[in-house]
Amino acid sequence: MRYIAILGSTGSIGKQALNVIAANPDKFKVVALTANKNAELLEQQIDQFRPEIAVLADCLAGERLAKRYNGPTKILVGEDGILEAATCQRADIVLTSMVGFAGLKPTLAAINAGKDIALANKETLVAAGGLVTACAKAKNVRILPVDSEHSAILQCLSGENPNNVKKIILTASGGPFRGFNADQLKKVSVADCLKHPNWAMGEKITIDSATLANKGLEVIEAKWLFNVDYDQIDVIVHPQSIIHSMIEFIDGAVMAQLGKPDMRIPIQYALAYPNRIRSCLDSLDFKTLSSLTFESPDIITFPALKMAYDAGRAGGTLPCVFNAANEEAVYAFLKGRIQFCHIAEIIKFAIARHQLVENPDLSQIFAADEWSRNLASEAIIDLQ
Amino acid sequence: MRYIAILGSTGSIGKQALNVIAANPDKFKVVALTANKNAELLEQQIDQFRPEIAVLADCLAGERLAKRYNGPTKILVGEDGILEAATCQRADIVLTSMVGFAGLKPTLAAINAGKDIALANKETLVAAGGLVTACAKAKNVRILPVDSEHSAILQCLSGENPNNVKKIILTASGGPFRGFNADQLKKVSVADCLKHPNWAMGEKITIDSATLANKGLEVIEAKWLFNVDYDQIDVIVHPQSIIHSMIEFIDGAVMAQLGKPDMRIPIQYALAYPNRIRSCLDSLDFKTLSSLTFESPDIITFPALKMAYDAGRAGGTLPCVFNAANEEAVYAFLKGRIQFCHIAEIIKFAIARHQLVENPDLSQIFAADEWSRNLASEAIIDLQ
Repeated sequence: MRYIAILGSTGSIGKQALNVIAANPDKFKVVALTANKNAELLEQQIDQFRPEIAVLADCLAGERLAKRYNGPTKILVGEDGILEAATCQRADIVLTSMVGFAGLKPTLAAINAGKDIALANKETLVAAGGLVTACAKAKNVRILPVDSEHSAILQCLSGENPNNVKKIILTASGGPFRGFNADQLKKVSVADCLKHPNWAMGEKITIDSATLANKGLEVIEAKWLFNVDYDQIDVIVHPQSIIHSMIEFIDGAVMAQLGKPDMRIPIQYALAYPNRIRSCLDSLDFKTLSSLTFESPDIITFPALKMAYDAGRAGGTLPCVFNAANEEAVYAFLKGRIQFCHIAEIIKFAIARHQLVENPDLSQIFAADEWSRNLASEAIIDLQ
Repeated sequence: MRYIAILGSTGSIGKQALNVIAANPDKFKVVALTANKNAELLEQQIDQFRPEIAVLADCLAGERLAKRYNGPTKILVGEDGILEAATCQRADIVLTSMVGFAGLKPTLAAINAGKDIALANKETLVAAGGLVTACAKAKNVRILPVDSEHSAILQCLSGENPNNVKKIILTASGGPFRGFNADQLKKVSVADCLKHPNWAMGEKITIDSATLANKGLEVIEAKWLFNVDYDQIDVIVHPQSIIHSMIEFIDGAVMAQLGKPDMRIPIQYALAYPNRIRSCLDSLDFKTLSSLTFESPDIITFPALKMAYDAGRAGGTLPCVFNAANEEAVYAFLKGRIQFCHIAEIIKFAIARHQLVENPDLSQIFAADEWSRNLASEAIIDLQ
């Protein structure tokens, strides 16, 4: 039995993780759940999974829930509550499926408490990859990716000597605007962005997929998860999202992981690692599969990918600045305050103005994050 | 340093293996070479690789070579010579790259002498899979596939629990006549058959690829190599031969090995197993790769594949009979004695008339092989 804390249980990944856990009651037990503010769904999850702890980050909603709830689960609120869930004594593994930089503190707390991490919060590794991986190494805990691409890479590495990796090849769907030119991009709406061709995901990551910023974040995430150089990470657009990513080894062999675009496969792989457990998903049917195609990403029309590579290569606080500016810009776009093309411009604006700090400590990372958000917010106001 | 004996060094696989060995003089050393009758090439190989033993199966040509050769290598002839090479004391691993059922005896001798086998002679496992794998288990030796498909499967199994395999998916190019109907097949020539779309291989396997008998032999080979049921082995036509084969695991994940159609990759993987060594082959370039497509094999027009499944499922001496009839028919076709479509008819004829022996011993396998060849020869005469 593996005991699991889920940070962000009412989001897309959190819900699918609970689906996996419900299908495997002999293997997994939920001990803590946290949500941002969806009290109603959290309450249903509490009733179904009976965790020891449940937390609402929103204090007001959390206190209302604590008042009306009448059961064995301990209801907590706010950041302290989330940190308690992340470090809860019974948990073997913490699934970090909250969105954005907000995941950093609880992820570090969980690592410091010796919990393995099922990482669905790539922003944590982007903003503070050096710190987080060093901390994980010191505490001898595993950071297991839940992103389908990084899960594919982990699966391709199974039984292999990491020194034999020549290249990591991250596949990208190309998002809903693949093939668009700059003029066409100017006209896209939030609704257009939220129609991802292959994956049903949360709003933030769906917008990131449309700008290719998501692939940029994944490049930086891959650098830290697999300890490779940026020159060893390639991105190839594969619109069908059947090959989830690949490794080229030094002997010329390429290993790939394929599957239906269903996040339950990588979630389950991370939770059960290094085992595999039976799932009732339909098989990928090659006889009815369309052609698998590949093309170069369009880094001119979608500049966020190259900016992420550049920020990653520069290192220090720059990836954190990239991430924070992107988060602010995406939420401004989702609220209709800026246009789609402004997202990359805002990232560029923040990166160009940042005084990079090498080997930042946690307070310097928080400072860079805040600086970048402030700058992005000003830029957003100027654009309106 | 790994010491290697190559049985069949002047054939396609043998030559490519020597190419791999020459590129890695710090890792591999040739201790024995055998050839059927190509004395000239064997002599060049002796000069380059300085094995302890070199053998020509053809006694006359071998004795002529022994007379004129003046160097440190011991020249032997005939079957006894081949058995001496297969069991030569210094060899760690024996690459069995001779063609057809003739590989069985030396392969068994090598296994009994405790040598690991790099198996490029699938007919050995088809004809006597039960005996050969039991013998390998008893002697604690590895049988490492050199076929690109089975090498792909072995790579996909790396670090995995074999109990988690749901399906093995062997890819097939479909051969040069993919899409042909029965009428079109009646008109094909030997020269047409020898134009394989993706792979440069020996004549026997190239004809087998055109009839799909090769994929049938590979299905039976996979059954023995990976200890799975026939229901767990699927064949899918993938005309580009970029995905060399795949495994579907119980969790829905599919692992695949991809690469250029270059036999040096699987040869090197078998010789270096479980390590990988750097090769100077160009990378697979996904940016210039054409679409990867998949389709069902046409088992009506190319009946040999289904006959192999049926023979494999029936077991006993039937796969041996399938293989022997196919060998005879292929050589008759290569000599222009029968038409392409007759190959499958001759296999069918032999299988229909065979009195299956369950759990055959070696003498029963040899008897079944001889019986099948005689029957096939008669059928070939009748067809002329």
